[in-house]
This record gives sequence, structure tokens and C-alpha cells, in this order.
Amino acid sequence: MSSPSAALPAVLEKIDADLDASLARLFDFLRIQSISTDMAYKDQCKAAAEFVAKDLNSIGFEASVRLTEGHPIVVGKSNGAANGDRKAPHVLFYGHYDVQPVDPLDQWETPPFSPRIATLPDGRKAIVARGACDDKGQVMTFVEACRAFKAVTGALPLPVTMMIEGEEECGSNHLFGFVKDNADEFKLDLALVCDTSMWDPKTPMVTTSLRGLVYEEVRLTCADRDLHSGLFGGAAQNPLRVLAKILADMHDKNGRVTIPGFYDGVKDLPKDIKADLAKLKLSPKEFLGPVGLKVPAGEKGRTIIEQIATRPTAEINGIVGGYTGEGAKTVIPGKAMAKVSFRLVGKQNPEKIRKTFRAFVKARLPADCKVEFGNFAGAPAIELPFDSPALAKTRAALSAEWGKKAITIGEGGSIPIVGDFKRVLGMDTIMVGFALDDDRVHSPNEKFDLTSFHKGTRSWARILAALAG
Amino acid sequence: MSSPSAALPAVLEKIDADLDASLARLFDFLRIQSISTDMAYKDQCKAAAEFVAKDLNSIGFEASVRLTEGHPIVVGKSNGAANGDRKAPHVLFYGHYDVQPVDPLDQWETPPFSPRIATLPDGRKAIVARGACDDKGQVMTFVEACRAFKAVTGALPLPVTMMIEGEEECGSNHLFGFVKDNADEFKLDLALVCDTSMWDPKTPMVTTSLRGLVYEEVRLTCADRDLHSGLFGGAAQNPLRVLAKILADMHDKNGRVTIPGFYDGVKDLPKDIKADLAKLKLSPKEFLGPVGLKVPAGEKGRTIIEQIATRPTAEINGIVGGYTGEGAKTVIPGKAMAKVSFRLVGKQNPEKIRKTFRAFVKARLPADCKVEFGNFAGAPAIELPFDSPALAKTRAALSAEWGKKAITIGEGGSIPIVGDFKRVLGMDTIMVGFALDDDRVHSPNEKFDLTSFHKGTRSWARILAALAG
Repeated sequence: MSSPSAALPAVLEKIDADLDASLARLFDFLRIQSISTDMAYKDQCKAAAEFVAKDLNSIGFEASVRLTEGHPIVVGKSNGAANGDRKAPHVLFYGHYDVQPVDPLDQWETPPFSPRIATLPDGRKAIVARGACDDKGQVMTFVEACRAFKAVTGALPLPVTMMIEGEEECGSNHLFGFVKDNADEFKLDLALVCDTSMWDPKTPMVTTSLRGLVYEEVRLTCADRDLHSGLFGGAAQNPLRVLAKILADMHDKNGRVTIPGFYDGVKDLPKDIKADLAKLKLSPKEFLGPVGLKVPAGEKGRTIIEQIATRPTAEINGIVGGYTGEGAKTVIPGKAMAKVSFRLVGKQNPEKIRKTFRAFVKARLPADCKVEFGNFAGAPAIELPFDSPALAKTRAALSAEWGKKAITIGEGGSIPIVGDFKRVLGMDTIMVGFALDDDRVHSPNEKFDLTSFHKGTRSWARILAALAG
Repeated sequence: MSSPSAALPAVLEKIDADLDASLARLFDFLRIQSISTDMAYKDQCKAAAEFVAKDLNSIGFEASVRLTEGHPIVVGKSNGAANGDRKAPHVLFYGHYDVQPVDPLDQWETPPFSPRIATLPDGRKAIVARGACDDKGQVMTFVEACRAFKAVTGALPLPVTMMIEGEEECGSNHLFGFVKDNADEFKLDLALVCDTSMWDPKTPMVTTSLRGLVYEEVRLTCADRDLHSGLFGGAAQNPLRVLAKILADMHDKNGRVTIPGFYDGVKDLPKDIKADLAKLKLSPKEFLGPVGLKVPAGEKGRTIIEQIATRPTAEINGIVGGYTGEGAKTVIPGKAMAKVSFRLVGKQNPEKIRKTFRAFVKARLPADCKVEFGNFAGAPAIELPFDSPALAKTRAALSAEWGKKAITIGEGGSIPIVGDFKRVLGMDTIMVGFALDDDRVHSPNEKFDLTSFHKGTRSWARILAALAG
């Protein structure tokens, strides 16, 4: 048997030739109303799971619908081709078959579960339907790449385990337990996720890091009741004043977080990566304009991409205390509360930061002010090492397909399952996706560019060949 | 006719001799359920007004019940005795016949409108009923002093106009308009109010100042919507962070307000007054202990009495923004709001302070942050000049009655009608009252010490004689 790389040209040709059939299969998938958050659609979720399992079985996977206390999870396994003495990695592909609700329904130009090809004003063609992009369309780019390999070479180029869940849009409540309970089954060499986006319609992108999170609640108490500011104003400690002072102290005038040791474990990006990102010339107007802002508010001297993706933050997520209704009330409140969170990068240690933050607060408490803390999420950042060979192969494959250097980027938020893959299964994840900023994911008239679907499928074929090689 | 001072000993004797009859009259007044805030008691409020008018008429006032859109106001006028060539001032006495609601009723040891004399654990005797102190008992100390003068000398020692309203406990909504509409009738020489307290059971007190107030609402807007802190955290301006910084900047480390020019018009107390107050040795524990505090939080180097009564303040009365419910939500809010108020003293100018505060906020707004202000109450402080002859006479009269030097003090909050007397009628007010800290005003088992009632009546007789002389 020829090597995966040798077979690749034929596989790509097969993908091109089969595009209409691939689209027909995706349309069948899109017709299933698998809205996971609304129990009225429970049977449709099951139908979507069965659709995926059946399709995987048709291309040589041993696939089944595995029940959970929520919507089922589809698991499929294929050993891949005999591979001589090369040791191809066993990859775990993660995606989801569930979709977001469709309301407001009256804003859809055509019914959300009646997929169609639309021509955009600029001439691009796009698949329009709920789930066209998120995540049915993206999942099918991977499945269609596998199908083409199977058709051309009789097997997949490397062992693949599929895990397609049905609760991503409602919190993935049963996925973590499922992964943990079946860790032996999923503890493989590398995870692949297709649920992210391109940098722009021409530039492919690998998401290589996700920021971690520490979330704290700070509850201050001064007097044992609310006080009248006429009687007590001047003498009684005011917890809102204490809180304002503590929270204002968290940043210096350059936007750096002042909590001692906060930046321990934070490293600058490698020079070449930084240079790649600088070339993107993302303007503040482009990124912040759509939400009514224009000036990056983070650390001085950092680009906007660094500020949102590769630098840690301290944010005040909420404050409440005293009188907040209509009109005037001259109260000195007894209590005040703030929610504060930290986005973490690199090797920042969540528990150490939680502890240092609490000490920082306590050091600023005046007499007559007590504090209680409530702790919520805490998770370190996830980082794919920049020298990972799998990353290099993936970037090369994407660059070859799109004719443009694939960039790597960090994502500002967390994708919990990727953290679980690392912490529970000890596995790195490569996140590659073909969504575009104008895909209207979660909104009416969701779409997925035909080019994203077609070249996304070709991209996965190239990546699988590269990883196998 | 003898001078008021010459008649005083006989008047005081008459008060002593008539104590039981005075109490009987007060008890009749206390039996009227004049709860002003509950319209179910409308007729009882009218009955209380009629009771007062009838009683005033019985001692030579021309008194009538004047209707308003709310509860009526009793107005009574007496010209006082012919006075030779002395020019006695015409005084306006203000009090109220309405009382607070009685709930929780089950915490009353005896029914709230069945007045009785109780013996306290330490042997003091007290009148127990709703309104015993606030303000029926206090009003009757003045009325009984007038009655004794009338009985002994045939007339009051000076011209007196009475204004007894029925809406003090529900906002005095119709009083301001009534005063303004009838300004000519009430534009007299001096106002007297009996609705305040003693320093302690042995030390009489004149309230000589009321702090003013400026109340502001600060509404900040950054992004035009709430943002996800994963996607935008680091780059998007956070209005809660801006707000915390502005509010924290309002005080320096010594507790002084940093707004430029804030202390313009603030003067230190005269040395002798300061010395009097220092002798009171009010401990932080005594004042703050009952509300669970112990350390004065105001300007360093100022006594607690200064902090609460004669120094200006800046307080945060409320803050709200972002997520404040249960659990964690990683939001960067688009908006945040704070309510801020300033207690003013001396000649501080409310409109100037409002303007300077707004400039202070605007100077601290970063890019991408807009502010709107909502303005509420604004009123300067009210101060009776320390060199007022009427004040000197009142203090001397009180000191004579109680055998202890009467102190003067500032009150931290406002009493709106006293401000109106100054602003609308151009009249100073002397506030003298005989309430004690343990009177349970507004609470179940409200009481008024028999000594407060008896010596309070004697005090007013002495004050009236002194002011007339």
C-alpha cells in the first residue's frame, strides 16, 4: 500500500469530485432539529446521534450511540491502515451534533432546518441553516476527509477515535464524567477539535492556547446593618469605599496587574510567532469597533492580540452594594460584594493566584471591615507547545491547502473539554476550524462558506496524511 | 405687669403643681391613633389636629386646623404680653402631631395607644406609648410651658406662632408648599423646634447646625453591550474598573476628600465649643459599638463628634454593575452606576461641589468611557451662628434648669423644614429637645422619661422668659 502522502493527490481529487454528494449528506444532517437545550427536541437529538453513528459505520468505523443521563455521545473507532514500521499517532476527534435554538425565528430568511446554498452579496457561496457551521458543517469536513481516504486507499491513514457529543450548546454537562469514566478508551496520542475559526477567509489558523481562569467573590461587611449617612457619615466605615480602593489597586497606571507574583509563569511569545501576529495588523477599530469601543484598554505596549489572547487579566465582573434603585437614598451599606476573575496564561498557577489575591485584599482591609471569599472556577491555561511536531505538520498542511502561511493564535476564553483532555487524559489538542467572523453562529441565518466546507475537508485530508507520515 | 423673668419662679411652681394635669392632657393626646403614613388612620390624624387646635385655643391662641392635600396643619397665634419698650422676638414653634406605625405590634408590652407610666429597671419613670417622645410628648413640653405662663401672668411672655403638622413621619410632603404659600404669616424672628435629644440624661443640648447634602448618580458606559471576558478581556474597557478608580481617588490616605476646593467654606469650630465637645469624651465604642463597629473611619485627627457632625463627607451610597447573582459569570459589563453623596458643612456651596465633582469624574475617564450624571438633592448646611444672642439665652436657660452647662452640637443629617425656614423665611432655628438615646423612637415600647417631660416643660418656660427679656 502506498503511503498516506503518496495517496493524498488522489484523495483530494476524490473530495473535489464528491463535493455534491458530501453536501447532500451534510444537508441530511442539517435537517435534523437537534436543539439540545430544549427537551422538546430530545428525539431529534437522538436521531442526530444515530445519523452520525450510521454514517461513521458506513466508512469503516465501529461506531455506536452511547447513552448518558443527558443526550447521547457517539463514539466511533477505526484502526487505520497497516503502517509498516511507522508509528502513526492515534488521534481523538471531538465535535458536537447539537445546535443552538433558532429564535428569533422570524428573522430567518428561510426555515432554519431547510438547508440551502445562498449566494452572498460579494459572490461567495454559503450553506445556510442552523448548525451549518456550528458544528455540523465543521464535523463533516473531518468525516468527509476520512470518507475520501477510505474510498481511495481502503483505510484511514492513522487510527482515529471519534467523540461527537450532543450537549455542547447547553454546557456539556455529561461529557466530563463520560471522559473520566472511560479514560482508558480515550487516552490517546493527540486530540483534534474542529469548532474554531479561520483568521480571515484566506488565512488558516491553529488555536494553540486557551487562557485559564480563577473566579473569586469578595464579600465585605462593616456595620451589622445599613446606616443613615446623616447620623453615621464620617465615622462609620463604608464597605463600598473599601471595595473601590481594593479593586482600584489591582492595576497600575500601565494596566499591569499589581498583585504580587501575578506574572510568575507568564512568558513572552516566541519571536517568530510574535512577528507572524504583528503582520496580521489587527486594528483596534476592527476588533473593538463592532461593540462600540476603539482603544485597547489592556497592558500598555502590548498589541491587541496579545491583550486578548496571550496576556493574563484581572477583571471586575460585578459589584453590588448599598442603594441602587431609582432616586436618592442616603445609606451607608453594611455589606458590599464584588466578583473578580483572572484570565491566566502560560504556567500561572490558579491556586497560588487565588491565595495571593486573598492576601492582597486582606492587606487592604481597614479596621471594622471583614471579608469572606467565595471561590468558583479555577483552571490553568492550556498551551500546545510551539515546538510540537504535530503542530508543525498541521501548519504545513494548512499552508499548503490555502496557499498562505497558517498562523497560530491563543484564544482568550476556555473550552472546558480541551482542559479535560489535558488534565484527565494527558493529551494535547490541536484546534483547527474553518468558521468565519460573518458566519452568524448562534444567530438567525447561520451560514458556512462553501469554500470553508470544501477546502476544510481538503485541509483535514492533508493534516491526516501529515500526521500519519 | 412684672417682667417675664420676674414671673418665672411662679411659672415654674405652677408647672410643678400641675404635673398630673399636664400628664392627663398628654395621655389624651397619646390615645389618638394619628399614624400619618396609613390612610386608614386619616380621621385619627384629623382628630389629633383638632385636639391640638382646641388645646391651643384654651390657652389664648387663635388656633385653627388648616387643610392641605394631605393631613392638616394646626396654626395658632398668640400676641404675648404687652412688653413695655422691650422688643421681644416673635417666635415660630414647629412640631408634629403624627406618629409612626406601631408594628410589630406583638413586641409592645402594653397597647401602643394606651399610655401608662412605667418604672424602668434603674428607677427612672417614663411615659410609654407611641408618640410619647416623638413628637407629642416633646410638643406638649412647649405647650405646657405656655399654659403655665398664661395661668400665672395672663399672657405669654412673647408673641408665639405655632405650626404643628401631621406628615412629619411620612415626608412632610405638603409642609414646604404651605410654608411657601403663607410665607408672610410665618416670616418671624426665630424658629424653635422640639424634636431633638439631650446629650445624655443629665446634659441639655442645643442643636446648632445641620449638614447639607449633594447627591449624585454617576452612570458609566463603555461597550454598547455586555462582553464575554474570555473574548474581550484585556482589550475592552471595563466600566467597573473605571468606577472603582474614580471612587477610590475621592479620599486620600488620611480620609480627606481630594476633590479640588472641597473644603472651601469649611471652618474649624470655635475653641470654646471644641473644648466643650472634647469634655464629653464620646468614645468610639459608645457611638459605633451598637452597630458593630469600633474605629472612627473619617478624617484623621478629628474626634468622632467632629466626624459625624461638623466635618463634610463624601460617601458611596450604592454601586451596581455586571453580574451580581449566584455563582460565576465572566462578563465585562457595558455599564456601571454609582450613587455618591456629600454631607456639607459651613459655607460649602452645593452647586460648586456638584460641578467640581463632575469635573473630577470626567478628568478620570479613560478613552471609550462615557459618563452621564443624575442629580438629586442639593442643599447647603444650616448653621446657627455661635454668637447668636438667642442661642446664648437658650443655653443659659437650659444650664440653669439642668444644673449643667448646655452643650451645642451639630447634627449630621438634614431636617428639611429647618432648611426651608432659613431659605424661604430667612429665619434661624434653635433646636432643643429632651429625647434620650433609649427612647425607642419609631420602635415598640417608645417612651419619654417623666423627667424629660417635666424638666423639659420647665426648660421651655425658662427659654421663653429669657428670649422675651
